[in-house]
Amino acid sequence: MTPGTPTVEMHPQRWGDPAAATDLPESARGLVELAFGLQQPVVATDARPAPTALDDDLLDGLRALVGAEHVLVDDATRVLRTRGKSTSDLLRARAGDLTDAPDAVVRPDGHGEVLAVLAWASEHRVAVVPFGGGTCVTGGLAARREGLTGVVSLDLVRMKRLLAVDEESMTAILQPGLRGPEAEALLAERGLTLGHYPQSFEHASIGGFAATRSSGQSSAGHGRFDAMVVGLTVATPTGSLDLGSSPANAAGPDLRQLVLGSEGAFGVITSVTVRVRRAPEVTAYEGWRWPSFDAGADAMRTLAQAGLLPTVIRLSDESETALNLADPSSIGGSDDPGCLMISGYEGTREQVEARRAAVTEALAGLGGTALGEGPGEKWVHGRFAAPYLRDALLDHGVLVETLETATFWSHRARLYADVRAALQSALGDGALVLCHVSHVYETGCSLYFTVATRQADDPLAQWAEAKRAASEAMVEAGATITHHHAVGTDHRPWLVHEIGEVGVRVLRAVKAELDPAGVLNPGVLVP
Amino acid sequence: MTPGTPTVEMHPQRWGDPAAATDLPESARGLVELAFGLQQPVVATDARPAPTALDDDLLDGLRALVGAEHVLVDDATRVLRTRGKSTSDLLRARAGDLTDAPDAVVRPDGHGEVLAVLAWASEHRVAVVPFGGGTCVTGGLAARREGLTGVVSLDLVRMKRLLAVDEESMTAILQPGLRGPEAEALLAERGLTLGHYPQSFEHASIGGFAATRSSGQSSAGHGRFDAMVVGLTVATPTGSLDLGSSPANAAGPDLRQLVLGSEGAFGVITSVTVRVRRAPEVTAYEGWRWPSFDAGADAMRTLAQAGLLPTVIRLSDESETALNLADPSSIGGSDDPGCLMISGYEGTREQVEARRAAVTEALAGLGGTALGEGPGEKWVHGRFAAPYLRDALLDHGVLVETLETATFWSHRARLYADVRAALQSALGDGALVLCHVSHVYETGCSLYFTVATRQADDPLAQWAEAKRAASEAMVEAGATITHHHAVGTDHRPWLVHEIGEVGVRVLRAVKAELDPAGVLNPGVLVP
Repeated sequence: MTPGTPTVEMHPQRWGDPAAATDLPESARGLVELAFGLQQPVVATDARPAPTALDDDLLDGLRALVGAEHVLVDDATRVLRTRGKSTSDLLRARAGDLTDAPDAVVRPDGHGEVLAVLAWASEHRVAVVPFGGGTCVTGGLAARREGLTGVVSLDLVRMKRLLAVDEESMTAILQPGLRGPEAEALLAERGLTLGHYPQSFEHASIGGFAATRSSGQSSAGHGRFDAMVVGLTVATPTGSLDLGSSPANAAGPDLRQLVLGSEGAFGVITSVTVRVRRAPEVTAYEGWRWPSFDAGADAMRTLAQAGLLPTVIRLSDESETALNLADPSSIGGSDDPGCLMISGYEGTREQVEARRAAVTEALAGLGGTALGEGPGEKWVHGRFAAPYLRDALLDHGVLVETLETATFWSHRARLYADVRAALQSALGDGALVLCHVSHVYETGCSLYFTVATRQADDPLAQWAEAKRAASEAMVEAGATITHHHAVGTDHRPWLVHEIGEVGVRVLRAVKAELDPAGVLNPGVLVP
Repeated sequence: MTPGTPTVEMHPQRWGDPAAATDLPESARGLVELAFGLQQPVVATDARPAPTALDDDLLDGLRALVGAEHVLVDDATRVLRTRGKSTSDLLRARAGDLTDAPDAVVRPDGHGEVLAVLAWASEHRVAVVPFGGGTCVTGGLAARREGLTGVVSLDLVRMKRLLAVDEESMTAILQPGLRGPEAEALLAERGLTLGHYPQSFEHASIGGFAATRSSGQSSAGHGRFDAMVVGLTVATPTGSLDLGSSPANAAGPDLRQLVLGSEGAFGVITSVTVRVRRAPEVTAYEGWRWPSFDAGADAMRTLAQAGLLPTVIRLSDESETALNLADPSSIGGSDDPGCLMISGYEGTREQVEARRAAVTEALAGLGGTALGEGPGEKWVHGRFAAPYLRDALLDHGVLVETLETATFWSHRARLYADVRAALQSALGDGALVLCHVSHVYETGCSLYFTVATRQADDPLAQWAEAKRAASEAMVEAGATITHHHAVGTDHRPWLVHEIGEVGVRVLRAVKAELDPAGVLNPGVLVP
């Protein structure tokens, strides 16, 4: 990837490539109308952000550091760097609310320029919001500007190099601005893959994966992104961190794990050394039917604890399965669809055959019914499509949003019931509440909820109340407030329940040490 | 394990159970005499520590917190809590140097009492050295007393409970004072195992495993100890940390990874929630011969990168292999013994058979020669014996010590050559320098060196110089200064080269936040 390669910009009020936007599929229209009615909400198209709060003297300082052409203050660019892509972000954008627009977008190239920008920001007390792919769904791109001179978006778009590949150690050093497909394309030239495919894959960036502890759809086989990272370079206002002497060691606490998940509040990740693998020779995805969510989840647990996981494994609950199958061409003749599991295998032909055979035997023995590759192919084909469907539903006045958590296996059923009940209660009987398990460990799993309901007059308040209820249910159950969406600003109120007052003080102490002026993504992560 | 169960105390000047101490085996005597000569160093047996620096008023405060019978100031108890078990520690003990003896040994029971002791210590500026098994080999039990009122050893011997087992999630909550065999015995009652077997296993403690990021001989199959931990409770002078909402999550940095490896400098670990597994139905260990260390290491790399590791895998270099085989009954008729690899399999019969067959096919295809179970059984039988042999050699004036590092695969050969050369150069041509690989990852491996040489007049200075040379070679090669022995005081001078000035400042900031009086293991870990 040559530096400066243009990246497809997402529409400021929608997900993804504007060319890929779709209206509600005809097949779903009837169902949606029946469930929620079809409205036509007003979308503001003429909103403009406030003028930049940074005067020319300040901007000249920035221009001197990175080149004038890389300090952008035009409205269009600033609008494109306003917030992320949560449903609330989209609703605000559609309503013409651009209060979180940065005052400038600055595009440094390389670690040295990032360090210089951070020094400038600290000196002038300007907030810095690192921007990779802009796919955040937890408010992590909406920095607090109170008490500060202004806010700049630190756009990593020029830092898209594959810096090194070590095929003996099977590691690669990637710059943070590489989007998922860009990183995979560069690695594919060497026959390698990272194997990290979150739903945001097409637009999210390497730096963002690291800064938010992303977890991808192939996590059963490739691990979470934080498990792939063996090294990190970080620019902070008080100097550089260069971590990663070895795959693992006992040289004190693992500071890599303090940077992973730091969401731009401790520093800007300027390179990530990741473990890579040979690109798969073959892939195979297939469906399994389970009589219940419990039965399917127990089967996942058995596989995880037997060390027998496929590359991909996911399980929809009864509601999500039924909705998936509401496409008439997919029903397959069953009155009770049960719960759909997808299992996927990636690797050499030999690896895939061996693992698939072993998993197939295990799942059949546990009471699963093999559905063949049809459901697997359907899932692969649509794996990145859900956010486009959300836009189409928003276009018709249907509020769609997701949230996720994780817990230990013995708490899974309770957590599922409690979060589901909290969402249903907050959103009303007319709301659809769907759930799937898509990340499993020996000791536990994630739960990913999707809700759809008719938009209220104030959809932001409507969702905020549901989110509050769900988060409280998670905290009450002792589960995490987020398995892979990060803290941002949306989860910050509950972080203290997860890591305690002492944990919060540790985060504050680290931030104060690395960012004494408090300019790094202020208001994000650290309570 | 009932609280207060007596634990076998190690001899203050030797490793392990005094009843298991041995003289140099007759079979090795000739070889040792030939290589190094046999001397009879003087061992001081009548040394006594300085009187306690804590007056009765202070001690009464402590007694009020934990009970008078759990505040011990007698010489014998204090001597037993003086330093760890590095060769330098043993040499100092043999020379009658008890300057690091604590002023008192305090034995709190439970999190609340630990908190109370830490508050007392902070108020009175008394250093606190958490003591689990006392097996540290990097000076982590020798706290600095300058500027402080005194030093207490916080002995976790009363905290030996298995607090909870969750067989659905396959987790267990262990108190920190449980020694390796004690924890395994408690888990075995449920048919479970932790699977963590460092060489120090027989005496080291759960809290110590966590605080030092221990890695065991079955790390290929069970992972490092830090990878087994899903939750931690920590008492600090400023409050409690209770971490572990889920197997993994994105709720900010993983603070568990900041506690793991904190070596008592940030707090006292009062419980550890670990992932457990079913106790193995069958075990099998076998030997392989490789034509060279490089060939064997490449084979390990291939296995690791193919996801095809046994439970145990280790490889001795030519020198270590030759020395191992110097026992005449084991030579097996080969003139060129090459390099010995041990591969071990633990699990259900089915798992062991399948993995063993796959690994055997792979290793044979890579040029290994199967040696059958003989070498494997020999290794299993002697796996915890080396520290006893060290005592026997010290008894005859032979200096024996180990050090270890880790790096990425592509740097392995250089690191091996450089550290070996540094040790040989520092210790002279007469020194034996042996090495093995015993922990492997997809991206790299550890290197564990053992040296044996005739003791110089000042063996402490002799070893310090070799250690310095080896550590500099590690730093120069960009490798870690310790893969699984932790930082302690011995590695502290090189930590800055590993994590940088900014990394050191982060550690200091965390310590200042959690331990503002600076009483937690002062001088250990944090530069």
